[in-house]
Amino acid sequence: MKLGVCYYPEHWPEAQWAQDASAMAELGLTFVRIAEFAWSRIEPDPGRYDWGWLDQAVDTLGAAGLRIVMCTPTATPPKWLIDAHPDVLAVGVDGRPRRFGSRRHYCFSSRTYRAHSQQITRAVAERYGRHPAVAAWQTDNEYGCHDTVLSYSQSAAAAFRAWLSARYVSIDDLNRGWGNVFWSQEYRSFEQIDPPIGTVTEANPAHRLDYQRFASDEVASFNREQIGILRELSPDRDILHNFMGATLSFDHFKVGADLDAASWDSYPLGFLQQGAWPEDTKLRFMRQGHPDFTALHHDLYRACGRGRWWVMEQQPGPVNWAKWNPAPLPGMVRAWTLEAFAHGAEVVSYFRWRQAPFAQEQMHAGLHTPDGARAAAWDEAAAAVKALHALADKRAAGTCLDMRPAPVALVFDYAAHWMFDIQPQGADFDYLQLVLTFYGALRRLGLDVDMIPPGAPLTGRRLVVAPSLPVVEPSLASAFEAFEGSLVIGPRSGSKTSAFQIPDGLSPGPLRRLLPIRVAAVESLPPGWAEAGAHPVRRWLEHVEPNPNADLSVDARTAAGKPIWLNTGRVHYIAAWPDGDLLDAVLRRACGDVGLPVLDLPDHLRLRRRGDVRFALNYDAAPLDLAAHIPGIAEREFVIGDTRLGPAGVAAWIDP
Amino acid sequence: MKLGVCYYPEHWPEAQWAQDASAMAELGLTFVRIAEFAWSRIEPDPGRYDWGWLDQAVDTLGAAGLRIVMCTPTATPPKWLIDAHPDVLAVGVDGRPRRFGSRRHYCFSSRTYRAHSQQITRAVAERYGRHPAVAAWQTDNEYGCHDTVLSYSQSAAAAFRAWLSARYVSIDDLNRGWGNVFWSQEYRSFEQIDPPIGTVTEANPAHRLDYQRFASDEVASFNREQIGILRELSPDRDILHNFMGATLSFDHFKVGADLDAASWDSYPLGFLQQGAWPEDTKLRFMRQGHPDFTALHHDLYRACGRGRWWVMEQQPGPVNWAKWNPAPLPGMVRAWTLEAFAHGAEVVSYFRWRQAPFAQEQMHAGLHTPDGARAAAWDEAAAAVKALHALADKRAAGTCLDMRPAPVALVFDYAAHWMFDIQPQGADFDYLQLVLTFYGALRRLGLDVDMIPPGAPLTGRRLVVAPSLPVVEPSLASAFEAFEGSLVIGPRSGSKTSAFQIPDGLSPGPLRRLLPIRVAAVESLPPGWAEAGAHPVRRWLEHVEPNPNADLSVDARTAAGKPIWLNTGRVHYIAAWPDGDLLDAVLRRACGDVGLPVLDLPDHLRLRRRGDVRFALNYDAAPLDLAAHIPGIAEREFVIGDTRLGPAGVAAWIDP
Amino acid sequence: MKLGVCYYPEHWPEAQWAQDASAMAELGLTFVRIAEFAWSRIEPDPGRYDWGWLDQAVDTLGAAGLRIVMCTPTATPPKWLIDAHPDVLAVGVDGRPRRFGSRRHYCFSSRTYRAHSQQITRAVAERYGRHPAVAAWQTDNEYGCHDTVLSYSQSAAAAFRAWLSARYVSIDDLNRGWGNVFWSQEYRSFEQIDPPIGTVTEANPAHRLDYQRFASDEVASFNREQIGILRELSPDRDILHNFMGATLSFDHFKVGADLDAASWDSYPLGFLQQGAWPEDTKLRFMRQGHPDFTALHHDLYRACGRGRWWVMEQQPGPVNWAKWNPAPLPGMVRAWTLEAFAHGAEVVSYFRWRQAPFAQEQMHAGLHTPDGARAAAWDEAAAAVKALHALADKRAAGTCLDMRPAPVALVFDYAAHWMFDIQPQGADFDYLQLVLTFYGALRRLGLDVDMIPPGAPLTGRRLVVAPSLPVVEPSLASAFEAFEGSLVIGPRSGSKTSAFQIPDGLSPGPLRRLLPIRVAAVESLPPGWAEAGAHPVRRWLEHVEPNPNADLSVDARTAAGKPIWLNTGRVHYIAAWPDGDLLDAVLRRACGDVGLPVLDLPDHLRLRRRGDVRFALNYDAAPLDLAAHIPGIAEREFVIGDTRLGPAGVAAWIDP
Repeated sequence: MKLGVCYYPEHWPEAQWAQDASAMAELGLTFVRIAEFAWSRIEPDPGRYDWGWLDQAVDTLGAAGLRIVMCTPTATPPKWLIDAHPDVLAVGVDGRPRRFGSRRHYCFSSRTYRAHSQQITRAVAERYGRHPAVAAWQTDNEYGCHDTVLSYSQSAAAAFRAWLSARYVSIDDLNRGWGNVFWSQEYRSFEQIDPPIGTVTEANPAHRLDYQRFASDEVASFNREQIGILRELSPDRDILHNFMGATLSFDHFKVGADLDAASWDSYPLGFLQQGAWPEDTKLRFMRQGHPDFTALHHDLYRACGRGRWWVMEQQPGPVNWAKWNPAPLPGMVRAWTLEAFAHGAEVVSYFRWRQAPFAQEQMHAGLHTPDGARAAAWDEAAAAVKALHALADKRAAGTCLDMRPAPVALVFDYAAHWMFDIQPQGADFDYLQLVLTFYGALRRLGLDVDMIPPGAPLTGRRLVVAPSLPVVEPSLASAFEAFEGSLVIGPRSGSKTSAFQIPDGLSPGPLRRLLPIRVAAVESLPPGWAEAGAHPVRRWLEHVEPNPNADLSVDARTAAGKPIWLNTGRVHYIAAWPDGDLLDAVLRRACGDVGLPVLDLPDHLRLRRRGDVRFALNYDAAPLDLAAHIPGIAEREFVIGDTRLGPAGVAAWIDP
Repeated sequence: MKLGVCYYPEHWPEAQWAQDASAMAELGLTFVRIAEFAWSRIEPDPGRYDWGWLDQAVDTLGAAGLRIVMCTPTATPPKWLIDAHPDVLAVGVDGRPRRFGSRRHYCFSSRTYRAHSQQITRAVAERYGRHPAVAAWQTDNEYGCHDTVLSYSQSAAAAFRAWLSARYVSIDDLNRGWGNVFWSQEYRSFEQIDPPIGTVTEANPAHRLDYQRFASDEVASFNREQIGILRELSPDRDILHNFMGATLSFDHFKVGADLDAASWDSYPLGFLQQGAWPEDTKLRFMRQGHPDFTALHHDLYRACGRGRWWVMEQQPGPVNWAKWNPAPLPGMVRAWTLEAFAHGAEVVSYFRWRQAPFAQEQMHAGLHTPDGARAAAWDEAAAAVKALHALADKRAAGTCLDMRPAPVALVFDYAAHWMFDIQPQGADFDYLQLVLTFYGALRRLGLDVDMIPPGAPLTGRRLVVAPSLPVVEPSLASAFEAFEGSLVIGPRSGSKTSAFQIPDGLSPGPLRRLLPIRVAAVESLPPGWAEAGAHPVRRWLEHVEPNPNADLSVDARTAAGKPIWLNTGRVHYIAAWPDGDLLDAVLRRACGDVGLPVLDLPDHLRLRRRGDVRFALNYDAAPLDLAAHIPGIAEREFVIGDTRLGPAGVAAWIDP
Repeated sequence: MKLGVCYYPEHWPEAQWAQDASAMAELGLTFVRIAEFAWSRIEPDPGRYDWGWLDQAVDTLGAAGLRIVMCTPTATPPKWLIDAHPDVLAVGVDGRPRRFGSRRHYCFSSRTYRAHSQQITRAVAERYGRHPAVAAWQTDNEYGCHDTVLSYSQSAAAAFRAWLSARYVSIDDLNRGWGNVFWSQEYRSFEQIDPPIGTVTEANPAHRLDYQRFASDEVASFNREQIGILRELSPDRDILHNFMGATLSFDHFKVGADLDAASWDSYPLGFLQQGAWPEDTKLRFMRQGHPDFTALHHDLYRACGRGRWWVMEQQPGPVNWAKWNPAPLPGMVRAWTLEAFAHGAEVVSYFRWRQAPFAQEQMHAGLHTPDGARAAAWDEAAAAVKALHALADKRAAGTCLDMRPAPVALVFDYAAHWMFDIQPQGADFDYLQLVLTFYGALRRLGLDVDMIPPGAPLTGRRLVVAPSLPVVEPSLASAFEAFEGSLVIGPRSGSKTSAFQIPDGLSPGPLRRLLPIRVAAVESLPPGWAEAGAHPVRRWLEHVEPNPNADLSVDARTAAGKPIWLNTGRVHYIAAWPDGDLLDAVLRRACGDVGLPVLDLPDHLRLRRRGDVRFALNYDAAPLDLAAHIPGIAEREFVIGDTRLGPAGVAAWIDP
């Protein structure tokens, strides 16, 4: 794994660039990402390009031996473009155009903007596409950040109509698919259809889902336009995009399919503050981030990159954008870096080389403070370099450090998030929280997890977990049926058709062959209510009728007799929001049935294997002893650390 | 009492209709309501009517012996109408038109919409007005639902000006009435007056009150237009409207005056989740609904219908529209049905025959699941049929089951809600909560209550309760003075003139002859503050000066000496938000003085008399024994159940 | 000190005026403020003035010996003006014009309104400027109330561009100053710049700060236009403005510089309900107001008036505009009046003579109820008159009652509020709360405080406290360096340049000579987190590096070793949000070093000296004994009260 950094030559005097570049190399960095917001410097006036400074920056960085990640600057169209073409602007849910003055103000559906995005991409690619120092590309920046996928402009409305027309062909089919006979919502032509906002009460969920799908497709096609140009003008360079965390507003698998590798921007403390965890969890991990959140995203984006992925931006200290912005625990930046290694990252790139003294992110830490001194993260990066050398030495000595498929796969479904967001039925039914619940339970068992998209092959897996799959395509149902390992399926799976209707015969729809049950009713339970039973149920409870003729075991019920854990031996269904105990019991059984060994880790100790090396990370602010949790650990050969892990401590040992 | 169901033939294949109809009859249903959202099917293109399917549906249902409630489909104007006439749309408080894509998107003041509403009403009435199967009409659907009474369109502004001009004639009178000299708010003509929105700080309360009155009148006149047509074209059919619960944004008495019977849509669990009760109350009654909320509305709408009323939509299981949507306690749907009987309903109609698999309400339970199987509520409806047969047998045997005027009347005032909403003075001064407090206290005493509008005759009552009457018309004051029973009057009564001014001589204004007091000051108290005393005071406290020359008794004071219970013997005034103990003491005294016997019921046991039969309903999830609460109950002859009430249990006994 | 009252002759029949006037005089009032919202009566039609009624009112009041404070009625432009010139209206952050129907609906930048404001000012001043009864003027009313400083109209945008052009001259300098290279925010001309609203994520803080400065300047220039006219047409009259409490949206020092005296509107109970104090604090002082809030504003506005100040509106009972509106503790209105005296007020004027029975403020108490009877506050005003007579007698007998400079000065910086509001970095970093924390700590020590603007001379002070000064101009740094007393400087001081950038060498920037430290990083801490240590740190913690070569003492650290109290002996820096204990320790040391004697007062007992008389005020609802808190008090000669203070009690004694 290589290290890198995000650098903004345009923010600093040219005289400083060479010194910065050699300091980067000296620290042990390999990659440097530049220019992703520099449009106003590259094209200061319409059609007039100023390449001088950027040529100089590229040459200077390249001369220091650094490999450049060049960016298309399309996340920040300059003011002259907005003034000349106001239709570039996205439009909010309130019907008003977003305004210039920050970033991501463009509408993905603006044909004007598409043209300008391609034009600037072509210009930059023509200039630097074959430059020897340019090793990779990043398209745009953080699609979807600041809730920018959905726009309600005239352009978007027109593109939506075209999208619908292509999907449904006949307006009658659309009316049937959406159930528009309900409330006289029927349309007589595609031209009558508007984006689903401003309605008196909720809009048709099918209408909203199609708008969400359309918008997701718009992101993918916008990105694909840039990629086409980059492939043409910059051959043999990797093309990446830097995804955000906790952003599910478009299908990252689809965008990822066009990339050479995925990357994401990892800000564990900022994401913790913004997340929906209970207050005590947030306080406990205030300086560490949530122990499962970062790893989940590593695994997810590894899947989006089909095995290849980077951390494009790594938090180095306090950020500026959460409600509260504490500093990381000493050692934590190093630990995050090594955790990315353990999960298979190719590169971890710190954001940013030097804290800017001006504008929106002036309170965002970097590897250096604005006065040029080394910040706390510098030492941590240096320590990470050292640990990576130790690992590289081991690899050179023959230890395998290649990523292998994990025995456990978790099916991650962006559309599930969209559907529960549109129709939660219970206000706290949140897909990402549900996935985190499953993922955290697997990790407490010491298991490595691969994320997979719905429909991915399951060969070689021993346990497949689907926290929820509201829409089950027939192909997926068949794959599940053919799979021979343990299968754990969460609530609301198979509860909808792709048209956002309730399937014939009710939930679980196409999964019924696998799961001979019928979900006769569902109920959501307000906070404070625990449906009594050995495993008290919170949030969500289904009324399941097992097929009395099927060979189906009910292994947990509420006190009132409602089955909440049903299984056919190989296939388990959880008919409730899974609480810790229930989920733990189901997963232990599912693992046991296929001979997967499990541990019993505390919530702050997490493991990850890479090849023959196993990593442990202590997310606690207190030390811990691995020997108390991992049998036989004392006999292992350690590459990093030993059995005693300090706060934010990392250990790695050979475990073939 | 008959049972019925809401049915949407347009949602199902025509082939299924006959089977559905016969199943309805078989279950014991009498009424079936149809077509209230079917405009886009009745008039698919402007001016082109498609009667075929509806003719067929009406004939099929009629052939099964069902009595049809036909609806005007005006709650859902179709897209072609909106596109042709955007002025049909209501305008929100933000000044932006509501958009098509759900329901109730029209503006009551749109002259264009008035014309179209009449046109479609006439078309449907001409077609089915004299059809033998059509037994009744429902106008529109749930006026005011989704906060749709107030619209701020140009049409509404123009109509408001005309309304003001008719009310005040002279702009000087309006300026005087509103006190517009304050803050230079004076107008020089009615044309200068806008709706009261968008102001920098609060608008003039008199301005807002008149806008509310105007909007309420618009609902009544809109409804009256349809009624005129229906009376002309469909003689001898009852005309109803289905009111919503917890909706006080227009004067339901005024709309009810034009109807043959009132009806309402009763969703006890949804209303509980949306209500302002403390969390523990909501958890306690999560599967039952609040024990007083439903009954209060039964009594209120019985008053609006001048004795005749239905439940047009009865919740049958989990709904889709509250933040959390649990399932009812087993037996609860039957209990709700019988509770409606006890309160005098003519019909209880379940919503809906079969859960729709598509669109906004696909998660709303029905008597059947979307796959056509019987849902939990089917059994409950069947059990209700059985109980109703037992009651019918008793009636046939001579037991009186006619409703009689209750000894207690509660004066319910829609304008009081408007005024406290406009000028709460303390943020939690909520009229409906205040009414529920009084109503619940009366019911804990085992008393039956009739709701009456301000100004209704009081003859025959023994106790009249007015939770609050900010405006007391002279006629009402006279009626109170002439009344010979006990009178309990709540805070803020007589505190305003009809022009939203403080009356001469201060509160209680025209009630002063009856109540020789002067409210020198009032104060609102934040949550957490209890003004010390034998009856601690929360929320609201008045500084009352009794007339020292009057024969007035002060029976409770705060520790600081402020009178909170004053009475002249016959007339009681509560100068505070009444807490449970104080209110209980006042009501017991008031009852005792007129010889009304009272009980001491727990908060989950409620009684209601109909003729010579008394009903008890257990709102608890645990069983209870009536003998512990009702002296002599063991000797009664039971029509339904016995003295042991299970969860959601209902009993009825002869008590002449 | 004189007493006064706010009176609205236009609200009452002319026949009542003379009687009101003589009752005012009889009560002992000297001043009467009139006409500040009377535009629609003064100029009922465009250009047509109706002076008759106002002439009569002025004469009547004057005839009773009252001194009139005449107002410009510009806070309430009438409807005819708005209809003729809609560009008068302010525009909200949502881009929509505010609407007529309350007050303060004008935009400070509207050139049209500027012209009309001058025209009506000139008309009123010409009419009454030299009237013998007119003793003073109030311009407009409560600038900034209801969040009305910032407007986003076209006029404001144009004026902002002109303001920027004058400030920066070159667009390149603006781009550099704002750091617009960040996110391609660069402008090519001033014409391209819009107000900083509607952006996708936060706008550039420098952009927002300049908009705030611009808007603050607009208030000052608007006010200055009226003052120019009044000085010309009404010589020798004091000109005041009535500022609001808790309003920091413009620089009151700048507006105050044009006035003869400042005044403010003191509503202790309303401000308490609206404030950010913990709920238990709000309940504890519900009927008293917060013990430091009112005094802080007295001291602040005394500074704004350069020693001369009034309370223009004094709360007399429950108000109408807080979420809850309780009544003051008996005696509290008198106590507030005398507290103003102790802090040097020239006049306390009660709002209002008689409660209006109509419009928005009908629930706002006055000295009389709407029926003309005396309200509770009347007795309190009478009692205040009595106490003031006792003081006047003492003064006549030679006791000094002149205000003297306090030994302690607190530097109050409006721009600090703007900057922390724009960039809190931690969501609860609130400048006014920070100032209250310092101010309260000083007052618990029994110290009198003068507020001073940044840059005011420090001569004669023994202790200077700066809760936070993010921008330190070189002149201020020099003044601090030259100062010989103790200096206590709070967090984030010197952390920004005036362009809202991080200074060279980091914080504390220009204070480094004085404080040889470097703030390497800062972090904000969420509620619930206390950074461990002898003085646990909440909200805010800086990572300070002391200059190892400097003579600097670290007197408190966190458990993790971070310095939180550093000092050079004379200069103290608090590198954290100061908690009570830490701040107390620092201030006691700082006082001790300069020989300032301190007390240890409970949080409800507050002292203030005026000349040779010291005042004590009991903010508790229980009595207290001064002897328990003030050594030697028993031997003092009391002018008001004695050592036993009842609830809301006030004492004053000779203490030369």
